[in-house]
Amino acid sequence: MALFLDQQFAPLPDTNEIATKTFLESVSHLPHFFDCLGSKVFAPIKADINGNITKIKAVYDSDPVKYETLQQILLIEKSIYGSEWPKVGATLALMWLKRGLRFIQILLQSLVDDERDEDNPDLIRINITKAYEQALKRYHGWIVQKVFKAAQYAAPCRSDFLKALSKDQEVAEEECLTKVRQFLINFTATVDAVYEMYSVMNAELDYLV
Amino acid sequence: MALFLDQQFAPLPDTNEIATKTFLESVSHLPHFFDCLGSKVFAPIKADINGNITKIKAVYDSDPVKYETLQQILLIEKSIYGSEWPKVGATLALMWLKRGLRFIQILLQSLVDDERDEDNPDLIRINITKAYEQALKRYHGWIVQKVFKAAQYAAPCRSDFLKALSKDQEVAEEECLTKVRQFLINFTATVDAVYEMYSVMNAELDYLV
Ligand SMILES: CCCCCCCCCCCCC/C=C/[C@@H](O)[C@H](CO[C@@H]1O[C@H](CO)[C@H](O)[C@H](OS(=O)(=O)O)[C@H]1O)NC(=O)CCCCCCCCCCC
Ligand SMILES: CCCCCCCCCCCCC/C=C/[C@@H](O)[C@H](CO[C@@H]1O[C@H](CO)[C@H](O)[C@H](OS(=O)(=O)O)[C@H]1O)NC(=O)CCCCCCCCCCC
Repeated sequence: MALFLDQQFAPLPDTNEIATKTFLESVSHLPHFFDCLGSKVFAPIKADINGNITKIKAVYDSDPVKYETLQQILLIEKSIYGSEWPKVGATLALMWLKRGLRFIQILLQSLVDDERDEDNPDLIRINITKAYEQALKRYHGWIVQKVFKAAQYAAPCRSDFLKALSKDQEVAEEECLTKVRQFLINFTATVDAVYEMYSVMNAELDYLV
Repeated sequence: MALFLDQQFAPLPDTNEIATKTFLESVSHLPHFFDCLGSKVFAPIKADINGNITKIKAVYDSDPVKYETLQQILLIEKSIYGSEWPKVGATLALMWLKRGLRFIQILLQSLVDDERDEDNPDLIRINITKAYEQALKRYHGWIVQKVFKAAQYAAPCRSDFLKALSKDQEVAEEECLTKVRQFLINFTATVDAVYEMYSVMNAELDYLV
């Protein structure tokens, strides 16, 4: 199984336009991230994110020229769907996908920044909670928030998680963290650009699930 | 959408042998039950049960004569898989599926028996909790139990649930309950027979997820 940290995201061009094809190739490895958390409890999350990717890919595949960049997808869907937009199509799928990506990004960043719970230095709950609060919590009603609170206890301890991230590669912890830092450069830039695009296009929604 | 209450299970023959084909046709309507609960929170449960059905169907389709009854599936898989059995193949899928069926059966039975929480007579939490405790709780570790506790708050109130069960058919509550009672006859007998078969075949496991 390819290690998702090895699948670097492409650097952004000066225009900040994101090529759909390259983006889809890069994100296709990310659901593996949830396997690294090591519990079947996270299977529904992986399925949700896979669903987002499949939906965006279906729109792209229907006309790869028309939908060459993520920007074009939003623009064209806006004109197709009228008042239904943006809660529709690949625009909706990417709206949610970017939140999952942001969750992953903040969690990994918090790990490489060595943010720890002093009382439980080998747990990653503090990093997971930070990522959840910044990326997702405000879009979740109280029931899903309660589900999150329960599910986070299924998270592995820090050392096991880092080991899982480096799967099949007997690397030292420091080496793994270096890989994560490297991965985060283009990944963070891409996620930022997607958020920026939703803001500029007025495509962000804040309804609760 | 076909109403699952209208898809009666077949009566059991005197031998208690369950024809795989008929069984699969009947259970194929059951995932719709979770739509009646009316919240996306239950989507992962529906997906899990759909997965069980798909797995049993794949085994059946590979040789409909060999796998004509559920009993034959267990017997043949036992001989194929040796010590891996019963935590494998359609035997494992049916082991979990029957627990989901038991959950549905106990919940519906409790509703037609008019078991109510006196303080909240229009909620079905008491019925859901009873079904969960009898059918599933002992197979769930504390994290999944906590997830259940949170998720049950997404359940609809009694009247909305009964309305959903009678979807597209403007029937009175009493008429709907009559339908449920009718449905439960062969359904309960079938679920009982599957449990009996697991017991007789020594195919039941009680590991936690
Ligand atoms: C036995 C009892 C069992 C009871 C079962 C209870 C199960 C509880 C269910 C938990 C929910 C699983 C997570 C999924 C949540 C999803 O509801 C949301 C919104 O999902 C979006 O909804 C849209 C419509 O509004 C479209 O359908 C999108 O689909 S579309 O492609 O069709 O447009 C879809 O992604 N996604 C999300 O919130 C995204 C989640 C990303 C998660 C990131 C990581 C979090 C990690 C947490 C670590 C601790
Ligand atoms: C943003 C943060 C989000 C965090 C996300 C957290 C998500 C939490 C996840 C909740 C779990 C969903 C329910 C699924 C549980 C499943 O884990 C179990 C065992 O599932 C079995 O496992 C086997 C291997 O051991 C095989 O893979 C079986 O698959 S096989 O076919 O391959 O052999 C499979 O069914 N099934 C179960 O427990 C069955 C569940 C039936 C449920 C019945 C109704 C309950 C209704 C409750 C109403 C309130």
